Amino acid sequence: MQNETERNTQGLLRLINGPSDLKRLSVDQLRSLAKEVRELIVQAVSTNGGHLASNLGTVELTLALHYVFDFACDQLIWDVGHQCYTHKIITGRKDGLRHLRHPGGVSGFPDPSEGPYDRFLVGHAGTAIPTAIGLALADQIHRSRRQGPSPRIVVLVGDASIFNGTSFEGLNNLGMVRRQLLIVLNDNSMAIDPTVGALARCFARLRLSQTYDDLRRSTAAILEHLPGIGRSVEEAMERLKKHIRMVMPGSQIFESLNIPYFGPVDGHDIGSLVELFNGLRHIEHPVILHAYTRKGCGFAPADNGPSRFHSTGPFVITDDGVIEDKPSQTGRTFTDVFGEAAVELAQRDERVVAITAAMCEGTGLRQFRTRFPDRFFDVGIAEEAAVDLAAGLAAGGLRPLVCIYSTFFQRSMDQVFQEVALQDLPVIFCLDRAGFVGPDGPTHHGLMDIGLYRMMPNMILCAPANAREVRLALEFAVRQGHPVLIRYPKDLAKEGPEQQEDWCVPFELGKAVVVRDVDRADLVLVGYGPLVYEALRASEVLASMGIEVGVINARFASPLDDRLVRLLDSGKRMIVVEDHLLPCGFGSALLERAVDTACKARMDAIRILAAPRVPFRHDTRAAQLIKAGLTADQIVRQARQMLALPMTV
Amino acid sequence: MQNETERNTQGLLRLINGPSDLKRLSVDQLRSLAKEVRELIVQAVSTNGGHLASNLGTVELTLALHYVFDFACDQLIWDVGHQCYTHKIITGRKDGLRHLRHPGGVSGFPDPSEGPYDRFLVGHAGTAIPTAIGLALADQIHRSRRQGPSPRIVVLVGDASIFNGTSFEGLNNLGMVRRQLLIVLNDNSMAIDPTVGALARCFARLRLSQTYDDLRRSTAAILEHLPGIGRSVEEAMERLKKHIRMVMPGSQIFESLNIPYFGPVDGHDIGSLVELFNGLRHIEHPVILHAYTRKGCGFAPADNGPSRFHSTGPFVITDDGVIEDKPSQTGRTFTDVFGEAAVELAQRDERVVAITAAMCEGTGLRQFRTRFPDRFFDVGIAEEAAVDLAAGLAAGGLRPLVCIYSTFFQRSMDQVFQEVALQDLPVIFCLDRAGFVGPDGPTHHGLMDIGLYRMMPNMILCAPANAREVRLALEFAVRQGHPVLIRYPKDLAKEGPEQQEDWCVPFELGKAVVVRDVDRADLVLVGYGPLVYEALRASEVLASMGIEVGVINARFASPLDDRLVRLLDSGKRMIVVEDHLLPCGFGSALLERAVDTACKARMDAIRILAAPRVPFRHDTRAAQLIKAGLTADQIVRQARQMLALPMTV
Repeated sequence: MQNETERNTQGLLRLINGPSDLKRLSVDQLRSLAKEVRELIVQAVSTNGGHLASNLGTVELTLALHYVFDFACDQLIWDVGHQCYTHKIITGRKDGLRHLRHPGGVSGFPDPSEGPYDRFLVGHAGTAIPTAIGLALADQIHRSRRQGPSPRIVVLVGDASIFNGTSFEGLNNLGMVRRQLLIVLNDNSMAIDPTVGALARCFARLRLSQTYDDLRRSTAAILEHLPGIGRSVEEAMERLKKHIRMVMPGSQIFESLNIPYFGPVDGHDIGSLVELFNGLRHIEHPVILHAYTRKGCGFAPADNGPSRFHSTGPFVITDDGVIEDKPSQTGRTFTDVFGEAAVELAQRDERVVAITAAMCEGTGLRQFRTRFPDRFFDVGIAEEAAVDLAAGLAAGGLRPLVCIYSTFFQRSMDQVFQEVALQDLPVIFCLDRAGFVGPDGPTHHGLMDIGLYRMMPNMILCAPANAREVRLALEFAVRQGHPVLIRYPKDLAKEGPEQQEDWCVPFELGKAVVVRDVDRADLVLVGYGPLVYEALRASEVLASMGIEVGVINARFASPLDDRLVRLLDSGKRMIVVEDHLLPCGFGSALLERAVDTACKARMDAIRILAAPRVPFRHDTRAAQLIKAGLTADQIVRQARQMLALPMTV
Repeated sequence: MQNETERNTQGLLRLINGPSDLKRLSVDQLRSLAKEVRELIVQAVSTNGGHLASNLGTVELTLALHYVFDFACDQLIWDVGHQCYTHKIITGRKDGLRHLRHPGGVSGFPDPSEGPYDRFLVGHAGTAIPTAIGLALADQIHRSRRQGPSPRIVVLVGDASIFNGTSFEGLNNLGMVRRQLLIVLNDNSMAIDPTVGALARCFARLRLSQTYDDLRRSTAAILEHLPGIGRSVEEAMERLKKHIRMVMPGSQIFESLNIPYFGPVDGHDIGSLVELFNGLRHIEHPVILHAYTRKGCGFAPADNGPSRFHSTGPFVITDDGVIEDKPSQTGRTFTDVFGEAAVELAQRDERVVAITAAMCEGTGLRQFRTRFPDRFFDVGIAEEAAVDLAAGLAAGGLRPLVCIYSTFFQRSMDQVFQEVALQDLPVIFCLDRAGFVGPDGPTHHGLMDIGLYRMMPNMILCAPANAREVRLALEFAVRQGHPVLIRYPKDLAKEGPEQQEDWCVPFELGKAVVVRDVDRADLVLVGYGPLVYEALRASEVLASMGIEVGVINARFASPLDDRLVRLLDSGKRMIVVEDHLLPCGFGSALLERAVDTACKARMDAIRILAAPRVPFRHDTRAAQLIKAGLTADQIVRQARQMLALPMTV
């Protein structure tokens, strides 16, 4: 008997190779399975890094959804995508989790290339509700033409995505849907950092006022009154309102949008969740189920420090239960250096303020927030509002630093154009994670920012190559009366001896610096950002072969240093290397300038090493740079080709 | 005595050269002034074209705001910008209105270059609330450092901008502001088209249920209970709730966001508005005043048909009071042709559906909506949701046409990237008003779309040159299993004899067509979109001079036709002409491809005629094309230069 129990509780996950295996379990067994899933997630993330806290919060919600729905034909849409580890474990990918976010392992986000259970490759927030409306409308149209079963559609919205403008636009258009659509609101009070904003505060007040018993009572009331045969949603809602305190601040916004709202319920009570989903799946109308979860639930360190474990590198748990980062790369990252430089700048210049969109930790602003709480603004996952706020602050005489990852910053492209660039306001955009980002994969690379922003009037685009240049770029930016965009990658920032090099001089508008003499060379290597070090290394390899080439640190993508064109015009060949797409990048800007000034060089006198327009899957950043051909080796090969030397030494 | 009255009521506008003159009038005189302002607006728009209905709706609100506030130091922020004609009339620009949107006249949008009363050059929706928060925060920081008077900040939000995601992100962050900030919600039930969405419906229901007397009662109650000395906003709100039916659907959303809400009030009752603003300006807290207005108020044709008069060309009023469009250009526009082609496509292919974002009329979809109401979706001013909806529809097996102006489409750049391009979904983006747009000016040009979207994976970019090619491009697009973007300008589409030309053959992926023989020519002119006709005209002029040049209609910006590079490689010279910025445009794509394939041509063998990266002010589209050097004359001049002929004939 004990053996039987042991087998049931300890090895359940072994039996689960797909959602159909899950459906054979009892609800009690689901509880045991949840424990095993949690262990696997902690193990996978401690080994590989990843989004820990969010995934620990969605274990029961995900298991209950798969238990009730059949996502081989039903549709499960994630928002944001990084909460899907349990989903991957259940849908036949538990082995892939061992190498989570590494080659051979699964991606950290839903990815249709991994199988039919992932509908969209998504990592940016706010998009699932309007996308699901589209799916529902498509089905509405199909059903109007021919009979047949309709897939159920479920959206799991979490990590404060609901407060994003795109989510709101979706909610406001939900009335178009005249069929089933279940929105599960996974409310953990957190984005990456604790959620900010009026609506979040209103949810938080509500949450604090409710006990576990309150949640049980509201769940029981919902179950009792769920619409059944002959009972409509409206009837159910009316009856519900009479039974429990439904008119609560959190539900007002949904009521004003005319969306039936059920909740709040306990998002870790798997038994109730199964019953709730069983009832809610039959409602032929969009509805919201509001579930409370704990980010990090079931793993004490993450439960206590969810920001630390939102997205983490590999870690080890010592025998004393202490968490230690696994030593990986040593040294300071561009993020670290920027964070320090921003604080120093703010100390010297009282006009400096900082804005982020739920990325305080990730953009290195923690110290800034502590030191200057009145000069720090976090708008939540609302990149558009962040940029407009900055426009207002700059128009009011301040010098805002807008600190957002390059990929998420795409969301505010139109605001950057209209409210900042067109007004020529002195906003400083500090784009972290520009270029290849490594394990987060296709949705997260920052490979378009040069193209996006060099089209805009008045914008100055620059890129520091090392730690010292981060400071120099910031000091330069704050002196301009124009918008300045500074990009840097998710990588270590070189420092030490290199910093003393004579090319680390103050930034001058549109001026590149010579890193290795160009006058005596036939070929010049030009790097934009830290890839200049790959060019430098290539020049050393070439020198060891007796080939002397020049190296230039471009510093500015806009305005360009015309000296680069003059070098081409004078007959030198050039290789450009940049951590950006080939389309619209730095090299492209150089070509435009060369043609515009009727440069006499041949087109094959220049080569641009940049990323191709194809999605790069999760891997290390270093591997992605190699794959894209943006390393010293590749530069050496290209240089020798251009100089028509034989390819073998 | 009668003379005195006549002078007061009929010639008041003559006396108003700035807001200070306004303050000398009595409230009764303001009413008369409103009438004169309306007449001037109708006259200016009938002569020049412009946004008529919205501006007729905001006359009293604007006069009352200027009467109470002093916007020489206080700040008035517009959202959307096109409602500002009364503001321009009052702030010393009534003469400029005579040439509204034409050279020498004022712009149709707030424009800081016209004087200190316009803070931001804005035409896109949803941005004012977060921008105003920034201004308020800047003031908060200044005040914490030194004492001094704080400017009052007022935001006038209208034409359904409040339902935009960026507005919501602003409202959600309004709690950061701990000082005065008045948001006037100009609720006219309309965006460009009647407002859609749940929140708008909820506002509309409320509005229908309220009589004019109800509005008077709520106004009186607000005035009675406005916070005075020793009374807080919270107190005032509490007292108000007891006196009038404040808990109405429209206010719920603001209450859930913890924003004090006053209203609804009559936005045309200038006496009450003056009293209300006098009271509200002292509240040291963000508040919302909800005013009902009628779009088109005071001019019967616009009052009855506000969509028709949202943005109109010049018109005449006949003696019978009938409105007739002033004959301008004759022929069908690209918009007209697209609208017809979309209907034909939908007739033949039941997968075709259409989506717009409050631009049904402007994008030519009126007939589509009438014919296929179940296959037409308008999400309101919510471009981001529009694209996500399309992603869902395409994933559900349909072929959505997303019809949005190029400039507003910038708002959904990130959604196009993640939800459509990265998933490789067959969404067809139909970008109207691509290129120079004429009188709407800097905020509205569609000069960045080639650059933005050619960076994205899987995207196909094409441009029809004439009416026939609009159909061919659509037919091509619907056959692809990938996202396709079709761009066309706000201009007449050539048809007639040209359509029979043998180059108007079906579109083939990445294939350009030869319009005038290239084999015997040293120089080839390449046009992308309808500017190919400028190239054609230039070739005729050159031929008349004895110079034979080739002409190519490029059709695709992505993928490019490699034949273009081969022509360069074979020693031909090339002039590219495109209605887009030079940075990142079609020409830039050609250069990248040439360099990537080690083309042997010299850089000065190619010239790119494109728009420079500076804002082009309001003017006719034709004048803007001339100014940017994108006409046959300019091509002829450049061709002769390149062929080293003397510049004089």
